[in-house]
Amino acid sequence: MSFIKRKLHQEDDLGFGNRPMGKDQRMMNANGSSNIKRIGLPFFRSSDTYNWLISMSWGKFLTVIVIAWLIVNILFAFVYVGVGIENLKGTDGVTPRDHFFDAFFFSAQTISTVGYGHISPSGFITSCIAAFESMLGLLAFALATGLLYGRFSRPNAKILYSKNMVVAPYKNTTALMFRLANFRNSQLIEIAVQLVFTYNEMVRGQKVRRFMPLELERSKIGLLSLSWTVVHPINEDSPLFGKTKEELMDAEVELIVLLQAFDDTFSQTVHSRASYLDESIIYDAKFAPVFYHDDNGLTTIDLSKLSEIEMVTSAQI
Amino acid sequence: MSFIKRKLHQEDDLGFGNRPMGKDQRMMNANGSSNIKRIGLPFFRSSDTYNWLISMSWGKFLTVIVIAWLIVNILFAFVYVGVGIENLKGTDGVTPRDHFFDAFFFSAQTISTVGYGHISPSGFITSCIAAFESMLGLLAFALATGLLYGRFSRPNAKILYSKNMVVAPYKNTTALMFRLANFRNSQLIEIAVQLVFTYNEMVRGQKVRRFMPLELERSKIGLLSLSWTVVHPINEDSPLFGKTKEELMDAEVELIVLLQAFDDTFSQTVHSRASYLDESIIYDAKFAPVFYHDDNGLTTIDLSKLSEIEMVTSAQI
Amino acid sequence: MSFIKRKLHQEDDLGFGNRPMGKDQRMMNANGSSNIKRIGLPFFRSSDTYNWLISMSWGKFLTVIVIAWLIVNILFAFVYVGVGIENLKGTDGVTPRDHFFDAFFFSAQTISTVGYGHISPSGFITSCIAAFESMLGLLAFALATGLLYGRFSRPNAKILYSKNMVVAPYKNTTALMFRLANFRNSQLIEIAVQLVFTYNEMVRGQKVRRFMPLELERSKIGLLSLSWTVVHPINEDSPLFGKTKEELMDAEVELIVLLQAFDDTFSQTVHSRASYLDESIIYDAKFAPVFYHDDNGLTTIDLSKLSEIEMVTSAQI
Amino acid sequence: MSFIKRKLHQEDDLGFGNRPMGKDQRMMNANGSSNIKRIGLPFFRSSDTYNWLISMSWGKFLTVIVIAWLIVNILFAFVYVGVGIENLKGTDGVTPRDHFFDAFFFSAQTISTVGYGHISPSGFITSCIAAFESMLGLLAFALATGLLYGRFSRPNAKILYSKNMVVAPYKNTTALMFRLANFRNSQLIEIAVQLVFTYNEMVRGQKVRRFMPLELERSKIGLLSLSWTVVHPINEDSPLFGKTKEELMDAEVELIVLLQAFDDTFSQTVHSRASYLDESIIYDAKFAPVFYHDDNGLTTIDLSKLSEIEMVTSAQI
Repeated sequence: MSFIKRKLHQEDDLGFGNRPMGKDQRMMNANGSSNIKRIGLPFFRSSDTYNWLISMSWGKFLTVIVIAWLIVNILFAFVYVGVGIENLKGTDGVTPRDHFFDAFFFSAQTISTVGYGHISPSGFITSCIAAFESMLGLLAFALATGLLYGRFSRPNAKILYSKNMVVAPYKNTTALMFRLANFRNSQLIEIAVQLVFTYNEMVRGQKVRRFMPLELERSKIGLLSLSWTVVHPINEDSPLFGKTKEELMDAEVELIVLLQAFDDTFSQTVHSRASYLDESIIYDAKFAPVFYHDDNGLTTIDLSKLSEIEMVTSAQI
Repeated sequence: MSFIKRKLHQEDDLGFGNRPMGKDQRMMNANGSSNIKRIGLPFFRSSDTYNWLISMSWGKFLTVIVIAWLIVNILFAFVYVGVGIENLKGTDGVTPRDHFFDAFFFSAQTISTVGYGHISPSGFITSCIAAFESMLGLLAFALATGLLYGRFSRPNAKILYSKNMVVAPYKNTTALMFRLANFRNSQLIEIAVQLVFTYNEMVRGQKVRRFMPLELERSKIGLLSLSWTVVHPINEDSPLFGKTKEELMDAEVELIVLLQAFDDTFSQTVHSRASYLDESIIYDAKFAPVFYHDDNGLTTIDLSKLSEIEMVTSAQI
Repeated sequence: MSFIKRKLHQEDDLGFGNRPMGKDQRMMNANGSSNIKRIGLPFFRSSDTYNWLISMSWGKFLTVIVIAWLIVNILFAFVYVGVGIENLKGTDGVTPRDHFFDAFFFSAQTISTVGYGHISPSGFITSCIAAFESMLGLLAFALATGLLYGRFSRPNAKILYSKNMVVAPYKNTTALMFRLANFRNSQLIEIAVQLVFTYNEMVRGQKVRRFMPLELERSKIGLLSLSWTVVHPINEDSPLFGKTKEELMDAEVELIVLLQAFDDTFSQTVHSRASYLDESIIYDAKFAPVFYHDDNGLTTIDLSKLSEIEMVTSAQI
Repeated sequence: MSFIKRKLHQEDDLGFGNRPMGKDQRMMNANGSSNIKRIGLPFFRSSDTYNWLISMSWGKFLTVIVIAWLIVNILFAFVYVGVGIENLKGTDGVTPRDHFFDAFFFSAQTISTVGYGHISPSGFITSCIAAFESMLGLLAFALATGLLYGRFSRPNAKILYSKNMVVAPYKNTTALMFRLANFRNSQLIEIAVQLVFTYNEMVRGQKVRRFMPLELERSKIGLLSLSWTVVHPINEDSPLFGKTKEELMDAEVELIVLLQAFDDTFSQTVHSRASYLDESIIYDAKFAPVFYHDDNGLTTIDLSKLSEIEMVTSAQI
């Protein structure tokens, strides 16, 4: 069964190979992240630590920092107690528990370089450890500084995509459409979109995965100030021409969106991806208006309505 | 009424859609920022906080930092007083007000890690809070470090645009011109300019907004050392050919400038935008000279004269 | 002896000139780094210090920091002792060795700004030195902050390349193949590869080095989620067509891989290089599968098997 | 007098306008920096402070920081003395001069957050000032951190250019050549060079400046591992064809080099410029070899010889 007549170019492949997709599988998660498991790598790769610390959620990141801070202070507390709590002048605890907490708080005051001084180190070894710890503290917080800033300032696109694709009447035919907008207040410039149609095909009795870019009515806009409805006209050249939703679902269709833009706040190119499964395509629907002129004549866009659709009768086609 | 004969390409649209503009409206503010209101988004978006903190004015930014610092210290002061002011050794206040300020100053000394030590924490809970506060202080100032640097070092173009556009004699016809220069001392390389003409048009009884790029005499220069007068010759292919200022104003004309350059200080691509309304076009004028050789033969550019114009008689055209 | 019939374009040169390569030489190290010795430059170039500190190993980098910290503290300790240890109030050492360590620990507490205060400066000169040292300490740790972050966040590609190239049956002929994958968990977008074939050739009795790009079955993929087997079909246009391994080794063949990609974590373009010598080409072999569907139907890639090959019989060609 | 027959394209202009150059003038300094004086701008532009602080020499930069630190501490010292030196507990000076230095050192200990505590603030106003100063200190050093790092890590090219251009025999004609190499140890990738020929021409009795790009034998190389001799063959299409050095000097010739490359350490595009005056062109000379194989067969490049030339007899041309 050849789903599409047109000759496929090898370049249409996205780098996924030609493994077929099963019923419950998708090539890419809906938010564009990879759903491929990677094994066979060393557990710790210093070159990936940054990636990991930068990509995790804020809550998780702060937890990692607080736990690391606790562990380091606990370790140093044990060292100070081991070397002799009497070398920490100003402490007056009597039980081992008191000693530990005196050492712990001294460590915390040293590592943050707050150094009140009501507890102070004496003796050669304790002084050395404290000096080393204050240096370590500065370097550790230096790293935390960089990471916090790196997380905060990382140039990446936050694009809102409509939950569904629709197939709506368009000129003399129909068109496949989805809608997107910038979640951030930053200015996106020169936004370019590619829409890739992927499906299973039987080749000599074996299922293989095929890729095919879909022609867009326009694939680039100058500024993304409002929302953008990306339109693929379903004309005779389209692989969707004459196909029913059932046929698409049989072929395990997945539509992949690749977006590139220039972010004016960061002065850098950013990318975004999204994926739509066949089941998220709604026929005979169109997107509801998302912007209007408010009472002062100011153009207003309501991003909460980005995914809102209205049903249309397809009679006129 | 068709304002322009030429067939418009869909690509000429800038991403604004085809809503017509009213008398007092403009598509883009004169300085190129967006004048579209965005609603329907969650109030707090962590991904936009950076954008917000980076884009606000310096005065506002420093105010935000000082207020945040005050609030945090006030909160911690209440906590220290609540836990028991007697745990802050070295304080000698007697009234609740004294206690609060002792705690406030202790907090300020802890969060900045200055930690003089004339006030010092004692007792488990107070020591814990102080240790936690010093860690928090380091992280908070880490973030401030990053933001200050990010604001300071943000690669963006500061382009001075002439206040008006002029229509001046040019070769055998006239030309629409505006002038620009680099406000910064940095070197701008490979500066490219696009000029887009937007206007209202009646289509089947309905006003729609049209976009059309204007041909420039040259659209790219290698280095922006001096000023650059961007020239659109008003020949037969120009939508401005034979149009009076009144006709332009009837069509709610707005001219949008999109500039891209490579900034040599930041080694990054930067963008700038500007917008001219029909009313800012001056006919039969030309720009006054802006550079001259000084007494030492050094080429000198006087940027305060960038918008200066001289009237010309248009008789010779 | 002309190894190749095709006319060479000057542009095929990689910037190495046309010096021939000897038996034990390679143009580029296997990991893509340069193996050219550079002399005649000033010993210290501030513009290269960053490069040096950023590129060294983590262990070496931390050693440099600790040693610099020790040296600075030792110098300041001598200064404090020289100016008069009696100006450091709170010290109680009696021997010169005690004095030195008191001064050393005071210096360490000052440079890290921990400043416990059990030792404090008095007298004009000592106070000046301590004030200056604390300022210096902040600046030095500022630099360390930047370097730590710069090392950590440096956008560069970590590409795993298969240890060998193979020559395997491919369609109606054979093909030269190597395999690569992303070592990092980051997303690589728009990966482009060039493969350059370099060899010695006799020109008028003199050996010169030649460069020739090899045609790839595909030279660009959209996403590097899995591994990528780069394929150069050995057809009649290929310089490898009909050549035996011995002939390649006689011509001192080296194959250079130039890779470019966009890293989604850093939002920046990254490059990677690799080099294969003639001796690392294995004939009649193909790469073993590296990904499979696990029990949950999840696509899994085992990167430890990237270089694994299987022998094939070349009979069918 | 028309120096060149060929029709000039407007695009050949580099953005300098068409002012003629006098005898002692050059369009661009030899190191590629601008030699245009800019006036008419506000004295202080916050957007240019970064540019200024990043571009100045290291010595000047450190002086600026130390002086700023001194000024701030002196101001705060006066404030502390003005508010009442008795509020700084732990000071024991008796003369106004003693008071000032006690206050100065307290300020220095506060702004650097070292806070020994042998001097500590008391009283509401002094405590407030000290708290504010410690916050200010952190922010100021935060900025210094960013600047130090920004200076250190700024991606820019350091290209060594040969002092002179030579005109040497080349194939069946002669060629204009200059040589360049990377001063840094970083890898430069995809280096592209443009060479622009600028000269004065009489147009209707008036001198104007003309620009013309020169054809290069090759204008792009893949890697700049060694030196690169950029070659413009002086054939019939060249504006230099048949011209004597005197004719070039009459026309006030200046040759401008524009270089672009990708720096692998920074993963960013970098630019470099250079300018050669007519008087720096040496006829009948060629560049001396700059690399050789050392005793271990390692290719070695001696960058101190980059500008070294050897005279050749031009008889054979």
